[in-house]
Amino acid sequence: MEEFTFKHEMDVRDYECDMQGIVNNSVYQNYLEHTRHQYLKAINLDFADLTARGINLVVKRIEIDYQSSLKSGDKFVVDVKMERISPLRFGFRQNIYRLPDQKLIVSALVIGTSINEKGRPFLPDELVKVFGIE
Amino acid sequence: MEEFTFKHEMDVRDYECDMQGIVNNSVYQNYLEHTRHQYLKAINLDFADLTARGINLVVKRIEIDYQSSLKSGDKFVVDVKMERISPLRFGFRQNIYRLPDQKLIVSALVIGTSINEKGRPFLPDELVKVFGIE
Amino acid sequence: MEEFTFKHEMDVRDYECDMQGIVNNSVYQNYLEHTRHQYLKAINLDFADLTARGINLVVKRIEIDYQSSLKSGDKFVVDVKMERISPLRFGFRQNIYRLPDQKLIVSALVIGTSINEKGRPFLPDELVKVFGIE
Amino acid sequence: MEEFTFKHEMDVRDYECDMQGIVNNSVYQNYLEHTRHQYLKAINLDFADLTARGINLVVKRIEIDYQSSLKSGDKFVVDVKMERISPLRFGFRQNIYRLPDQKLIVSALVIGTSINEKGRPFLPDELVKVFGIE
Repeated sequence: MEEFTFKHEMDVRDYECDMQGIVNNSVYQNYLEHTRHQYLKAINLDFADLTARGINLVVKRIEIDYQSSLKSGDKFVVDVKMERISPLRFGFRQNIYRLPDQKLIVSALVIGTSINEKGRPFLPDELVKVFGIE
Repeated sequence: MEEFTFKHEMDVRDYECDMQGIVNNSVYQNYLEHTRHQYLKAINLDFADLTARGINLVVKRIEIDYQSSLKSGDKFVVDVKMERISPLRFGFRQNIYRLPDQKLIVSALVIGTSINEKGRPFLPDELVKVFGIE
Repeated sequence: MEEFTFKHEMDVRDYECDMQGIVNNSVYQNYLEHTRHQYLKAINLDFADLTARGINLVVKRIEIDYQSSLKSGDKFVVDVKMERISPLRFGFRQNIYRLPDQKLIVSALVIGTSINEKGRPFLPDELVKVFGIE
Repeated sequence: MEEFTFKHEMDVRDYECDMQGIVNNSVYQNYLEHTRHQYLKAINLDFADLTARGINLVVKRIEIDYQSSLKSGDKFVVDVKMERISPLRFGFRQNIYRLPDQKLIVSALVIGTSINEKGRPFLPDELVKVFGIE
């Protein structure tokens, strides 16, 4: 399994800020998800294509530590590193850093699995390849 | 075609408010859409069911006049009244009123059509019935 | 500290569903937040009012276990129970159950703190009261 | 008043797609708003800064024509051109084009005004400059 860390840069959009003037907590989950999907696409796993084939990548658990806040006008980078957790579960370690000062904003662990049309756990070949020969 | 006006009550949720402390403009479109779908369900047109059958109800044009703003804690009612615009287009006249003082917040006209799997305009029987005998 | 469990009922709105036809993961965080704020209001802690007074309730950590999914048309109830975690941290134990079958959809632990205008931890009197005499 | 057209490129994020597999209608309003705010910043009008100074730029009316849909993976460009509508109202003409084929997705007219802390119409100096000497 490759050990590289994928990175994706984004900007805060004003509609993502709440009445406290900072990015709403749930929005970071959007940032994290978008970066995971960009990462999966980079390793040839297209989320929309998998969904169309009846294979659903589903999140089973998410842990997010909020260290600081992003606000209007901030730029940031989200990273993601995948790891095998169990035969049918994989984890994504993710961090969000503000740019350009690299201040840690959020760190997260997202644990997912893959299920087929019948709702059964099922690892598509593309994912097996990512994790290497078992 | 029935002339009744359908109404649906909701509350402002804090995550819908932006840094101005008021509901973000795009969120009213969510309120309007949710009420249209509740209305369609009330006349036996289920949006998710139609989508699953390959029939997509699509919005072609939307006009929204913002008269005033909703803020955290506000209650409001959204109404909707359907009208035939052309053989293949229908309109939804919608208003949002704050409760309990009935202050007008938003008025809108949403124009939609219905297309089949090939992207062609197509009125499902359920919609034809709503509009009466042609 | 009161031990009662607060409950709030909601409906899935179609715009909250993603291309998998189910509620997007980040939306559950909106449901959880809205219910926490309704709960705080029920015990006389108004989130918007606190924000206006320069007191920000902030989430430090969130753990969410996704057990099953909600889809278009589903009704559900979110509950919340508050607990003291440390002198300056409080936790909210929350669950989302589908209605009417009470199937568990999501369980979560949200850990928060309260900071003043200078970014320093600060418990407003209202919160101290909730937690009882120290 | 300058007549230039400002452009901003973005990607569709999967969480912005709904159960029809396409970008939800209300999300285009987010794209349009984010591009307007980027444009305003480019001409030295910072939305968050104005809000902090008690000056609220508010949308009075929005007209959106939906020509086609964006879906997962699409790239697109949003443009904006500002025009004076009346002494206290300004309009933003905006289009969204899919990339790289430049297919028109959405065209919109957004009409706004500027109000001060008392809710009265008020044009800040920065905006007066944009519109030239009156």
